[in-house]
Amino acid sequence: MTKLIDGKQVANDLKVQIASSVKKLIALGITPGIAVILVGEDPASQIYVRNKQRAAEQLGIDSELINLPTTTSEAKLLAKIDQLNANPAIDAILVQAPLPAHINEERVQSAIAPEKDVDGFHPQNVGALYNNAKSYYPQANTPRGIMTLLAEYMPDLVGKKALVIGRSILVGRPMMAMLNNADATVTLAHRHTQDLDQLIATADLIVVAVGEPHFLKMSAAKADAVVIDVGINRLEDGSLVGDVLDDMPDSAQLLTPVPGGVGPMTIAMLMQTTIELARQHSTFE
Amino acid sequence: MTKLIDGKQVANDLKVQIASSVKKLIALGITPGIAVILVGEDPASQIYVRNKQRAAEQLGIDSELINLPTTTSEAKLLAKIDQLNANPAIDAILVQAPLPAHINEERVQSAIAPEKDVDGFHPQNVGALYNNAKSYYPQANTPRGIMTLLAEYMPDLVGKKALVIGRSILVGRPMMAMLNNADATVTLAHRHTQDLDQLIATADLIVVAVGEPHFLKMSAAKADAVVIDVGINRLEDGSLVGDVLDDMPDSAQLLTPVPGGVGPMTIAMLMQTTIELARQHSTFE
Repeated sequence: MTKLIDGKQVANDLKVQIASSVKKLIALGITPGIAVILVGEDPASQIYVRNKQRAAEQLGIDSELINLPTTTSEAKLLAKIDQLNANPAIDAILVQAPLPAHINEERVQSAIAPEKDVDGFHPQNVGALYNNAKSYYPQANTPRGIMTLLAEYMPDLVGKKALVIGRSILVGRPMMAMLNNADATVTLAHRHTQDLDQLIATADLIVVAVGEPHFLKMSAAKADAVVIDVGINRLEDGSLVGDVLDDMPDSAQLLTPVPGGVGPMTIAMLMQTTIELARQHSTFE
Repeated sequence: MTKLIDGKQVANDLKVQIASSVKKLIALGITPGIAVILVGEDPASQIYVRNKQRAAEQLGIDSELINLPTTTSEAKLLAKIDQLNANPAIDAILVQAPLPAHINEERVQSAIAPEKDVDGFHPQNVGALYNNAKSYYPQANTPRGIMTLLAEYMPDLVGKKALVIGRSILVGRPMMAMLNNADATVTLAHRHTQDLDQLIATADLIVVAVGEPHFLKMSAAKADAVVIDVGINRLEDGSLVGDVLDDMPDSAQLLTPVPGGVGPMTIAMLMQTTIELARQHSTFE
């Protein structure tokens, strides 16, 4: 069996640190607060939101759930965001994706105050990431969680060949920026990419985020490749699998399992970003 | 001799279009205006600024030069920018790089109103580019000029292997984003990249922006590669050369000459962006 990257363990270690940071902040009179907006009743979104709330609770972070009906107008959602932007008890605002089709996602992401944008999706924070800005800004939590895993399992990224497959705004694009900022040589692949096999065969690090069960076989990667599987796909039998098939028993490769790899890191990073924003606000106020 | 990409010609065609657009805007009562801020007396910067002003003049665009002494404080520069942000006669604000060391470039870029940010360096506009936003936003003019050249000389970028060498905020990074948005498969290479020769040998398109004379030899690239040379280096004998050495006579390759390739496109695109911003403002007001 390929050696597995223990995302659960790294996430738990991080949570211990966060809980201790929260205690210190509370002692200073600062209680970090996150507001989560859920529009509609998508069952998967409800689970994600519940998990985020539970994590906040465990760590001593105030959390508020705002559940709006599917029929909520964009104007009403934007007004709610404005209200949270102005609320000093709220450090972090998260709008759970996906939004109903009648709501413009770009407009919503831009409406969240950049300094409360816990997902790092506001164009200003995205721009800071791509410019590798020196000042603090929140970063997308899934790729940031992956960077934290890599710090443990592949600490030297300088000059490494990294292949990111999938270019979503949530994962692939910010992942590319973070790996580039860490001095890896990054190639961003997508549905139009030709010769993907050759890119896979030569990469030191592969991040797969395509949402297709068993899209990548470990046997197609280098003998010492590190592979990060961002996919979460439910099969007909109800089981969860990632985008990667581990067909390389006893290899020297490293792989994140699904579940237990990237997923736990994303929630832990979300909490980490929340307390960072709370710290920033306490400095500003 | 390798076939040359005629940047001068494409830039001149674009300027004819821009001049005609300016006439139409003026007939509607809208005179596009650009303000150029130059801090200090760097001779190269003075030439760049003069060329930009001359181009604006030729095309009927109002231009204002604000020449501040090298000793100007950051606060004073930011105050000047605020004033231009509030001035309705100014559609486009450009701060000529490089700035004196005592001025924080990031802060200056963020101070320009995003809707007057003719260089496309404001984090919000950078973020829009990396997210491939649908709404209008200004884009960095050098890579945008290169995209315009490619539209003429390499119209089908989908699935093409593109290699960008150099990752500056002005050229390499936004170039990577634009090529990715055009569905090429982009690799961003830099000083830490290993196996650069292999990447060069397999790329369909290479954009070189490293600032080193003859960094890339055409013989190292594919027999039908398209190579964009962003470098402008002055040799000891006073002559100008790019980052590329053309050692492939009679090849089927395409190359931008230096001078006469990317340079003229950058200034033309700057003017194009200025009138786009003027149009945006007329819609808003």
